[in-house]
Amino acid sequence: MSTRELIILGTAAQVPTRERNHNGYFLKWNNDGILFDPGEGTQRQMTYADVSASQITHIAITHFHGDHCLGLPGVIQRLSLDKSPHDVNVYFPASGECFYNAMTHASLFQNNVQLLPKPTTEPGILFQNDSLVISTLKIDHRTECWGYRIDEPDSRSICMEELAKYGITGPKVGILKRDGIITTDDGRTIRLEDVSVARKGQSFAFVMDTRPCENAIKLAKDVDILLTEATYLDSEAKQAHEYMHMTARQAASLAKEAGAKHLILSHFSQRYQNYSEHLQQAREVFSNTHLARDLEHFDFPKRIRFQC
Amino acid sequence: MSTRELIILGTAAQVPTRERNHNGYFLKWNNDGILFDPGEGTQRQMTYADVSASQITHIAITHFHGDHCLGLPGVIQRLSLDKSPHDVNVYFPASGECFYNAMTHASLFQNNVQLLPKPTTEPGILFQNDSLVISTLKIDHRTECWGYRIDEPDSRSICMEELAKYGITGPKVGILKRDGIITTDDGRTIRLEDVSVARKGQSFAFVMDTRPCENAIKLAKDVDILLTEATYLDSEAKQAHEYMHMTARQAASLAKEAGAKHLILSHFSQRYQNYSEHLQQAREVFSNTHLARDLEHFDFPKRIRFQC
Repeated sequence: MSTRELIILGTAAQVPTRERNHNGYFLKWNNDGILFDPGEGTQRQMTYADVSASQITHIAITHFHGDHCLGLPGVIQRLSLDKSPHDVNVYFPASGECFYNAMTHASLFQNNVQLLPKPTTEPGILFQNDSLVISTLKIDHRTECWGYRIDEPDSRSICMEELAKYGITGPKVGILKRDGIITTDDGRTIRLEDVSVARKGQSFAFVMDTRPCENAIKLAKDVDILLTEATYLDSEAKQAHEYMHMTARQAASLAKEAGAKHLILSHFSQRYQNYSEHLQQAREVFSNTHLARDLEHFDFPKRIRFQC
Repeated sequence: MSTRELIILGTAAQVPTRERNHNGYFLKWNNDGILFDPGEGTQRQMTYADVSASQITHIAITHFHGDHCLGLPGVIQRLSLDKSPHDVNVYFPASGECFYNAMTHASLFQNNVQLLPKPTTEPGILFQNDSLVISTLKIDHRTECWGYRIDEPDSRSICMEELAKYGITGPKVGILKRDGIITTDDGRTIRLEDVSVARKGQSFAFVMDTRPCENAIKLAKDVDILLTEATYLDSEAKQAHEYMHMTARQAASLAKEAGAKHLILSHFSQRYQNYSEHLQQAREVFSNTHLARDLEHFDFPKRIRFQC
């Protein structure tokens, strides 16, 4: 059974608070683990959240403001200390390569991990395997900033009743899955499409920091979960525009326009005592909105069971 | 009244745990504030401990292993964000200047603080003003490492009864303090020494990471508080030697040999479930031993009141 889980490691913009660490988000996706925007303290938050360094196979950094990346040195050193057995791809804006280099050489340590730096210069697919595709688009912040999207490739769900009808059982099912076509004992040619229905892959979008923009909508198009920034309230809409962030309401409009199924808000400004108004203002536009809290786990929505 | 307080921000060696953040120690000393070895997460620990960035006037880094320095970028960015109005001296081993440079350019931020880097190449006095002298000596670790000592300059405590005897009152007391000598109304010459007793300044030593060594003893000589590493127990004495650290018992021997008044142990290996044995083994040698816990405050010992 596939494991898809989003773990919130930190939710604070700019400065950490007593309740909220700097940003940090870990997405478990079958055998992959993608760490997004590791702010300072991510290493310790992982301990609290029972995420081990060796689960990380990709690190995706949207931009190089400190609250989105200063946990990288600690994470790298922890990967090394734990002798993580696999390579780790690190995606980041190419114009910030100097910061990537600084953070990977910030202190003395015994390097035991193979990091594969992937400075992003073009939109598109960054990585793909059987279970996921990682893609990126540039979004609209004060510095070069890229949002990310994870897609499970679409597949087909086999209808056992249909198989039985044609007498396809045992190893033949595997052959049909592999080849997409099989000849039955009574000489009929059966295609995979004849005995299965299309199954849309699950998807996730990570959009921060940005003003509302077309690429944010593209990233979030029809996703199961959209995790995005909601730094401000309506009352600070002017600041949101000036500092190139979003209000909670704008985040909700993004989710609505993109047709996302669930919206999770994060990256909150410390100026607010609590975030109930963020939730309220967002839900006025998009009811399926949640506020991220540190160390919270979100399971992916259950798949819809297709009728054959 | 002078304010002298030691605030423990973190106590973990190598990796943080649920209970212990990476190293970090803040010493309030009248109008100065010295931040020692800011490990990752120090910025947030300061929030928990009610230490504001603007209180920091000096940062002293013993060496560039990550657990002793990776909080520096966050602290610098917080100093900038809070527009700390004064310069901040940063002391560190000169051979690690590349790490200092990497950490001060690790991410994008608006720099509003004047950092004065002070790479250490020679032992001796790093800074002095009316209330403190900061000095350093090299200690014995796997990489270049410097311990620190803070001394209040010795002064004299005036005996009011003696002043009264000579009829020295009001503004004349200030003149005597300033000039060290005064002529009384009846023509007698009175020196400060005639109406005061010597008052030894308070002192503090910060010694980590190191094997037992002569310079550690010199740094800790007769200090009021010695804060030092006690990474291991007796049972790991071999590892302590190999990795160039101390056991709790060795830390206690250092305190005893140096004639320190109070010993605080920190920088604990994560291999132990609790640290009661550290305390026990140290107290067998030096009874006035305490275990540092995150966010603990230590007041400086009360001064002895001298008899005139």
